[in-house]
Amino acid sequence: MHFLSDNTAAAHPDILRAITQANAGHAPGYGADGFTEEAEKLLEAMFDTDVRAFLVTTGTAANALALSAMTPPYGGILCHEEAHINTDECGAPEFFTGAKLIPLPGEHGKLTPAGVKRRLAAFAHGEHQVKPAVLSISNPTESGVLYTPEEVRALADLAHEHDMLLHVDGARFANAVAALDCHPDDLAGRAGVDALTLGATKNGALMAEAVLFFRTALAVEFPRRRKRAGQLVSKSRYLGVQFVAWLRDDLWLELALHANAMARLLSARLEAVEAADIATPVQTNMVFAWLPRKLHEALVEEGAEYYCWREEHERVLARLVCSWQTTEEEVEAFATALARHVGAG
Amino acid sequence: MHFLSDNTAAAHPDILRAITQANAGHAPGYGADGFTEEAEKLLEAMFDTDVRAFLVTTGTAANALALSAMTPPYGGILCHEEAHINTDECGAPEFFTGAKLIPLPGEHGKLTPAGVKRRLAAFAHGEHQVKPAVLSISNPTESGVLYTPEEVRALADLAHEHDMLLHVDGARFANAVAALDCHPDDLAGRAGVDALTLGATKNGALMAEAVLFFRTALAVEFPRRRKRAGQLVSKSRYLGVQFVAWLRDDLWLELALHANAMARLLSARLEAVEAADIATPVQTNMVFAWLPRKLHEALVEEGAEYYCWREEHERVLARLVCSWQTTEEEVEAFATALARHVGAG
Amino acid sequence: MHFLSDNTAAAHPDILRAITQANAGHAPGYGADGFTEEAEKLLEAMFDTDVRAFLVTTGTAANALALSAMTPPYGGILCHEEAHINTDECGAPEFFTGAKLIPLPGEHGKLTPAGVKRRLAAFAHGEHQVKPAVLSISNPTESGVLYTPEEVRALADLAHEHDMLLHVDGARFANAVAALDCHPDDLAGRAGVDALTLGATKNGALMAEAVLFFRTALAVEFPRRRKRAGQLVSKSRYLGVQFVAWLRDDLWLELALHANAMARLLSARLEAVEAADIATPVQTNMVFAWLPRKLHEALVEEGAEYYCWREEHERVLARLVCSWQTTEEEVEAFATALARHVGAG
Amino acid sequence: MHFLSDNTAAAHPDILRAITQANAGHAPGYGADGFTEEAEKLLEAMFDTDVRAFLVTTGTAANALALSAMTPPYGGILCHEEAHINTDECGAPEFFTGAKLIPLPGEHGKLTPAGVKRRLAAFAHGEHQVKPAVLSISNPTESGVLYTPEEVRALADLAHEHDMLLHVDGARFANAVAALDCHPDDLAGRAGVDALTLGATKNGALMAEAVLFFRTALAVEFPRRRKRAGQLVSKSRYLGVQFVAWLRDDLWLELALHANAMARLLSARLEAVEAADIATPVQTNMVFAWLPRKLHEALVEEGAEYYCWREEHERVLARLVCSWQTTEEEVEAFATALARHVGAG
Repeated sequence: MHFLSDNTAAAHPDILRAITQANAGHAPGYGADGFTEEAEKLLEAMFDTDVRAFLVTTGTAANALALSAMTPPYGGILCHEEAHINTDECGAPEFFTGAKLIPLPGEHGKLTPAGVKRRLAAFAHGEHQVKPAVLSISNPTESGVLYTPEEVRALADLAHEHDMLLHVDGARFANAVAALDCHPDDLAGRAGVDALTLGATKNGALMAEAVLFFRTALAVEFPRRRKRAGQLVSKSRYLGVQFVAWLRDDLWLELALHANAMARLLSARLEAVEAADIATPVQTNMVFAWLPRKLHEALVEEGAEYYCWREEHERVLARLVCSWQTTEEEVEAFATALARHVGAG
Repeated sequence: MHFLSDNTAAAHPDILRAITQANAGHAPGYGADGFTEEAEKLLEAMFDTDVRAFLVTTGTAANALALSAMTPPYGGILCHEEAHINTDECGAPEFFTGAKLIPLPGEHGKLTPAGVKRRLAAFAHGEHQVKPAVLSISNPTESGVLYTPEEVRALADLAHEHDMLLHVDGARFANAVAALDCHPDDLAGRAGVDALTLGATKNGALMAEAVLFFRTALAVEFPRRRKRAGQLVSKSRYLGVQFVAWLRDDLWLELALHANAMARLLSARLEAVEAADIATPVQTNMVFAWLPRKLHEALVEEGAEYYCWREEHERVLARLVCSWQTTEEEVEAFATALARHVGAG
Repeated sequence: MHFLSDNTAAAHPDILRAITQANAGHAPGYGADGFTEEAEKLLEAMFDTDVRAFLVTTGTAANALALSAMTPPYGGILCHEEAHINTDECGAPEFFTGAKLIPLPGEHGKLTPAGVKRRLAAFAHGEHQVKPAVLSISNPTESGVLYTPEEVRALADLAHEHDMLLHVDGARFANAVAALDCHPDDLAGRAGVDALTLGATKNGALMAEAVLFFRTALAVEFPRRRKRAGQLVSKSRYLGVQFVAWLRDDLWLELALHANAMARLLSARLEAVEAADIATPVQTNMVFAWLPRKLHEALVEEGAEYYCWREEHERVLARLVCSWQTTEEEVEAFATALARHVGAG
Repeated sequence: MHFLSDNTAAAHPDILRAITQANAGHAPGYGADGFTEEAEKLLEAMFDTDVRAFLVTTGTAANALALSAMTPPYGGILCHEEAHINTDECGAPEFFTGAKLIPLPGEHGKLTPAGVKRRLAAFAHGEHQVKPAVLSISNPTESGVLYTPEEVRALADLAHEHDMLLHVDGARFANAVAALDCHPDDLAGRAGVDALTLGATKNGALMAEAVLFFRTALAVEFPRRRKRAGQLVSKSRYLGVQFVAWLRDDLWLELALHANAMARLLSARLEAVEAADIATPVQTNMVFAWLPRKLHEALVEEGAEYYCWREEHERVLARLVCSWQTTEEEVEAFATALARHVGAG
């Protein structure tokens, strides 16, 4: 019953197999190898609009590096107060950009055009304030909730009207595309997104993240930014081939669809229990549910693993994440444990 | 005839096999998995003195992060003018530390106590100058030349007398230990080294580097530095297991001994040719040789791959690097080509 | 009717006279002159506890530099969301420190121990989050409201319990001391403050700010930080002598008492008018009052100068600041204009 | 006999008088006052080409801020190894820019097109190296030696051919213009200079430096850079009026001519003494002379003040700087002391 995170999962066998196949002979270093080049081309082909792709090793580096190309050091980055870049990256965005993060509130980790506009109105004092330069959203949000293509478009338009750029943290972008049953570009270039950080690690890879620039001018000196940040991998073929396998035959989509389906099943099982209280719309691969503390303790004792997102006196907010590796059996085992303890309670 | 670099080699099969074996079931993220913990313990056991080990993905990140824990932002880092940190990391050390690099001359990439002392004498103007905080050397140097344990000790003592710390860039540390037939700690803790960046990538791994702090106080807040730099890997087991396999049964030593032996063979073959001129003592896995331009062009045409370190009108300085993957056949093929063209010339 | 800010005022004649007297002969550069040394000593004598003083040219530099000595780059600085460091310094604190600002809400710009504790509780995820390192308050706040010695002490204790330091932005510190009729040290060293940025510019000087470290270890390498930030003044005597004159015969206190008294008078005149609505307790030299838009426009047309802190449809929040230069006549002229337009309204 | 530096001099009475006159009534803060605006206009009128001027408080800040607008963080700044930005600013340029300083050798602190070209040739490894972005020279150099308009032009052309910008550290720019008897713009805009930091402090002001952008695009967001660096002065009128007085009736030129003349006289007196050895062409207001150690000690004992630039066993290299305040009497007193001790020796 592993619902701690989608990064506790192993790598998908197809991806590991591809790495093994790539492990033959010599290959030029620092991204000049054929696998990296193929990965970049496949990533660029994943979208309809013109785009430049760069591979890096972690999601934090992907976000911070993308942002560093989007804002001057005297800029401001507007984001949700619960955004990963604001709460879980130990200041990496400030470090890489030199800029200031400006946190905004919003339900389920989402920003709205009205909320952004309200915040921007406070930036009217010229050089005394940073220049709002980037609007950054996570799709899905850290609460697993989606922005539709129209919602992304509206925020992109708003950003551009204010001479800002739109960044999307897509650590779970595959889950968003799978959930919305849309073309990847509907949430990216076509929607006005300027830069997307696209995660494969949480969705079947070992360690593979990409920065994608739809505003291609941002890509021009990005190789130097990546090198300067210690993110240019010498044996890059092992990064590249992960993306090659991930994109081949839409493996990424298959894995994301599965993870989302498991979350739906898990959610259904929780909804069936009166004591549990779904806290957030279940739209991708994450379920947030309030559980009575006693029930929570009983589940943990039985071996259920998940993250306590928040704690109150009598209850805890559980975050349960499904991955490509989650099985129906695991979900049903959890449901059985749930039922048993609710009945007992 | 692949002598371009030791990072064009593939990963050693044992390391890839270990990754495959690690790819089962769930594992805690961000370094709390068993493989990472075992890797850290094995790394710490590789040395006799007390040490703390941290895994990262690239050598540039390892160097820059290690340095960031060793100098205040108003500090100075003395290094050889040809040091990798000064010439090939696109300013990463300045970025991660905020400090100033102070390049020094020296034969074959080596610094001497006398040269360092002379440079330090110029730092006498208080707050107008940065505070010399770190002495950084590469062992072996970027020219493949060694510092003996005694030489490291002398520089460590000098650094400490001046309230500075000693950093060793050990991208090819295994080759140094293999060449000197000493205990790893003879070039590290026992020699007074405060921090070592230890590379496995060039010596058989896919992508695995470590930062080792012999001055353990430097390790206290290093986890936050690593995270802030985007170097905390979520599925860290795939980093950890590489080191586990690399250290098991001294695979690292076996591979380094082989690479060094291949370089010796290559050097012998070049020495036998009057037209070629060995430029630097061949002490590890690299050979630097001046070749007449015509000979160079003929070799390249035959498929020999190596790096032109410097070019003059009538000759080029070739850098030929051997790796764990270099075969005797490759070296002899190169020797044959050499002989043919010299004879023809 | 100049109430725009206390930095639109001229310098006090005594301070200008002192500068003129200092303008004779040669003096050592970079702070080694007698005036700077006397200023440092007088500043240190202003407080009872052991303290180190450093002169700089602007309040933004004073804040950002003080903070840079108090937090590691992976640290967090908790402050009020309306703090000058968060809203009006164009990201200088992030630039100088590399750290992250963490804004908190609170009435009238004030933080409470309960509010700080609540925010700190969210920092429990180790290296994924910055390390809370500094608690920064403004005394008086940007709304002109005071922390009493006991309130400062409570926040200092809380900070120290959490291994944090307390910084006080004292751009208007003189006004606070004057208002509370206490010893300067009651709001500084004795209250547990670790660093204070003390402004003289708004209170009679031309351009003179100081950083004071009550935790003297913070001072050790501060000269290099100041130089590296471009804040070491070569003809420092002109900075030093301003503080000498400002501190001599408690000129600073006299000027601050006057400014506070003028604000009280202004407040009384506004309170007498039903249409005006005092928005914030008037405790120092600033008055915040809601004015009907029509009244506001009429006053501006008559030449009244003040800052519109916030605007609503039918009313504006006026910030009126008194300085050492504000005269009773000015206040009464404003009161007369007010009365006339209210009567007419 | 004060020859320590031109910043040990007082401010010129005309400049102090102007400050006193400016000290009346209220003035808008942060550079919106009439004096600052007039200073900016006068500075812009000092040159023939289009230029934007910004006032700051120190030369180090002026240099570091100007450079920060000229290079991306992954850039390189080529400068002389003895340049003030490389040796005497405690890393401020690295701090403000994030970039890397690349020191070059050259006689008397001067760079030559050939030397710069040679160094640029080493930048051919793409993203592994910083991108050469700025060429920075000091005119006059730290050794008091001049670049002629033609020499500046040649370096500007070279920089521009390599997609770099030319920065001039003009801490003593007035002395250069006075010495070359040329129009200020001959050494600035007309010569292809992109940014000039112009110092008034060493030439009669209290504390007044300017950043001038001849490539006016660099000025667009400079106000935010200045504010973020803590260099936007609230009572800016006191900065502005210094420049107004300094530029009025060419006071700057008169003072610089005088300082240069005093250095020529001093040089002549030293040349007359066989024991002294002029080490550097005396072209502006500085004299470098080798003195036997005994003679040096005797002069110091008599009260002569100057800086020991370098020391050898039997002799010292004395740097003697003249300022607007240096009198013929002072120089002759020094000459007399010199003669006495040489005669005695």
